[in-house]
Amino acid sequence: MSRRILLVYDVNEKRVAKVHRLLLRYLVWRQNSTFEGKLTNGAIKEMIRKISRYIKPEENDGVAIYYLSSKDSVTVEILGTDKGNKFSNFIE
Amino acid sequence: MSRRILLVYDVNEKRVAKVHRLLLRYLVWRQNSTFEGKLTNGAIKEMIRKISRYIKPEENDGVAIYYLSSKDSVTVEILGTDKGNKFSNFIE
Repeated sequence: MSRRILLVYDVNEKRVAKVHRLLLRYLVWRQNSTFEGKLTNGAIKEMIRKISRYIKPEENDGVAIYYLSSKDSVTVEILGTDKGNKFSNFIE
Repeated sequence: MSRRILLVYDVNEKRVAKVHRLLLRYLVWRQNSTFEGKLTNGAIKEMIRKISRYIKPEENDGVAIYYLSSKDSVTVEILGTDKGNKFSNFIE
């Protein structure tokens, strides 16, 4: 069973590129520090383990992972430019 | 009836402060460029009208608004530092 997640990171500039690259292996980039996607529990655990190795809470790094329970529970409205990947399997 | 929304903005550095201040009047800040909250349709329309006056799509500004349909449809997990407001009415 896969879960739909929305992830937003807030990490020190020094670590943004590394975290961004890591997340691209699991999720679809929407904009700025926002990623979307559907992952199995196993993949989520693996991703979290890796993120935890990269981020430094002692330097105020934070990552918020929103777990959304069902497909019909989210719609998205974009104002201005939509930088995201049109093929996100998050909303459809 | 109020709707739960999660908003993420990606705007030019020049406009971040103004957009951030505007959003604080409607939503709760979670971290970085991420806000959460529950708003009536009227308040959402008003907020969107004001955001649209501030952002410049021609300079690649974008705002993603996620509408979440029901209370039990989202949980959040924080890795590292939780900078957000502990009193967000979004999850509870």
